[in-house]
Amino acid sequence: MLPALKRATLLLSRLPGVGEKTAQRYLFHLLAERPELCEELGAALSHLHESVGPCVRCGNFAEIIPGAETECDVCQDPKRDPKLLCVVGKVQDLLAIERTQAMRGRYFVLGKLLSPLDGVGPESLPLPALRRRIEVEGVEELIVATPPSVEGEATALFLKRELDREGLRLSRIASGVPHGGDLEFADPITMGRALEGRKNL
Amino acid sequence: MLPALKRATLLLSRLPGVGEKTAQRYLFHLLAERPELCEELGAALSHLHESVGPCVRCGNFAEIIPGAETECDVCQDPKRDPKLLCVVGKVQDLLAIERTQAMRGRYFVLGKLLSPLDGVGPESLPLPALRRRIEVEGVEELIVATPPSVEGEATALFLKRELDREGLRLSRIASGVPHGGDLEFADPITMGRALEGRKNL
Repeated sequence: MLPALKRATLLLSRLPGVGEKTAQRYLFHLLAERPELCEELGAALSHLHESVGPCVRCGNFAEIIPGAETECDVCQDPKRDPKLLCVVGKVQDLLAIERTQAMRGRYFVLGKLLSPLDGVGPESLPLPALRRRIEVEGVEELIVATPPSVEGEATALFLKRELDREGLRLSRIASGVPHGGDLEFADPITMGRALEGRKNL
Repeated sequence: MLPALKRATLLLSRLPGVGEKTAQRYLFHLLAERPELCEELGAALSHLHESVGPCVRCGNFAEIIPGAETECDVCQDPKRDPKLLCVVGKVQDLLAIERTQAMRGRYFVLGKLLSPLDGVGPESLPLPALRRRIEVEGVEELIVATPPSVEGEATALFLKRELDREGLRLSRIASGVPHGGDLEFADPITMGRALEGRKNL
């Protein structure tokens, strides 16, 4: 293979779910397209880290404006309730919650979940920054929206142990059978959680 | 969504099989990676059309060397038999044939296949260039390796009609049940071709 194609294939293969075949499919498509598309795409990717960075307050993706502090749309939104804070594992989860338009508060992105087997212990979590934020902004309710996985649950329990105190309500998002889901095909753990988390009708 | 992310998503969605969700998955992955990967990938894609272009003789991908004619590895290979020419629809097909290492000759990439419904008539095919090549290089066998699809077959028949003459052997790649394929699941057309193209044992 040509060196330029080989190099581009190798770099594209670093994308999630992209192997050599898919990378080449992308490249052959780009080579068949007009050169401007390649240049525009190349430029957009080259400058990605210059134009998008983590919000200094919550870790959400934010536009980088030179000379100003990088702050995301949610943190800049004056209509958000500062007393309600939602803790998520990663930015994608924050975006999924934002899509519901059901969140009145702001966010805090942990960036990782407790996973001792992968070497992520409690000291790896940004607990001091979270504590500071709770204090400074006078947070009254903390919604722990880590995923209902082993790591997500462990992180939620850890946060409860560390942050539980008078005047701070800690809550956890519900876990159960998803909307439109079939009870017949729900796994036992999900079904168990759906029963456990039942509400009065 | 942030303008930079929106723009990059839009551009990535132009890749084959990539929708908005996959594009964002790629971007979120790139944002979580070190900035150098983004820059390298961006640069590789930006300069793709400057470093790779069609070979002037056969249409294969070739390295562009400023000041020199763009000629691919196959055309530059002196060990190739100039009397054997293989006609393919697109460069990817050429690369698939090259992977077999069974081709002693050179190639000619049509770039398109006859498809009247899509407005690709005989005049859209590079027939004059192919004719010139056959004459100049004294080609003795022309292997038509267009795919065994409606368009590929139509193109093969058209080439036979246009190029059939004394001293030029025209051949067509075999079509039948693929290696490792199950007769039980072969479609009727493939099975029919397998029977039709049978060989003496």
